[in-house]
Amino acid sequence: MKRIDLIEQGAFKDSDFASLLVHESPYMKVLNFNFEPGQTLPLHSHDIEGEVAIGVLEGSGAFLSADGEVPATPGSVLVADIADPHGIRADTRMRVLVTIAPPI
Amino acid sequence: MKRIDLIEQGAFKDSDFASLLVHESPYMKVLNFNFEPGQTLPLHSHDIEGEVAIGVLEGSGAFLSADGEVPATPGSVLVADIADPHGIRADTRMRVLVTIAPPI
Repeated sequence: MKRIDLIEQGAFKDSDFASLLVHESPYMKVLNFNFEPGQTLPLHSHDIEGEVAIGVLEGSGAFLSADGEVPATPGSVLVADIADPHGIRADTRMRVLVTIAPPI
Repeated sequence: MKRIDLIEQGAFKDSDFASLLVHESPYMKVLNFNFEPGQTLPLHSHDIEGEVAIGVLEGSGAFLSADGEVPATPGSVLVADIADPHGIRADTRMRVLVTIAPPI
């Protein structure tokens, strides 16, 4: 059992969104991505089985998909197949929690 | 791909913490628990393989374990084996995002 404080440990970077590996196991991979306004995780996909859940902890922007975008607001969650194109764009400073199962 | 707005859809209950099933698949189960101050998910465990990740979206309280408690603050995450006793106590109104993999 472990506790991670993403506010204390999650940094921001000027060059690109910052990624923190929170947890990795045979069951899941948990990441924290922090974005400065305007930074993006571009639309991408992985040709494997599994799903990704992205929860917004702080800030606002958009979840990107092949069909366009939907609002990414605090407390909103996107669930997608890893094989479906997905991405994130930050309009403000933004912290998201990413869970991937099975882990990639 | 789906988006769920937990602020819009997640209710609170006076009688006990409120649970919303966000997503269920062969890969993961995603839940949203909302607590009024003082409500708890008592220490419990499941005698199965897998892990649970609990991220705090809003509010504060404590993550409970067999060893005692640690702070549950906005942006903090607890990762535990499902088989290890875990729980939550809310000191303020609290919204958490729970991911279980593999799903139970």
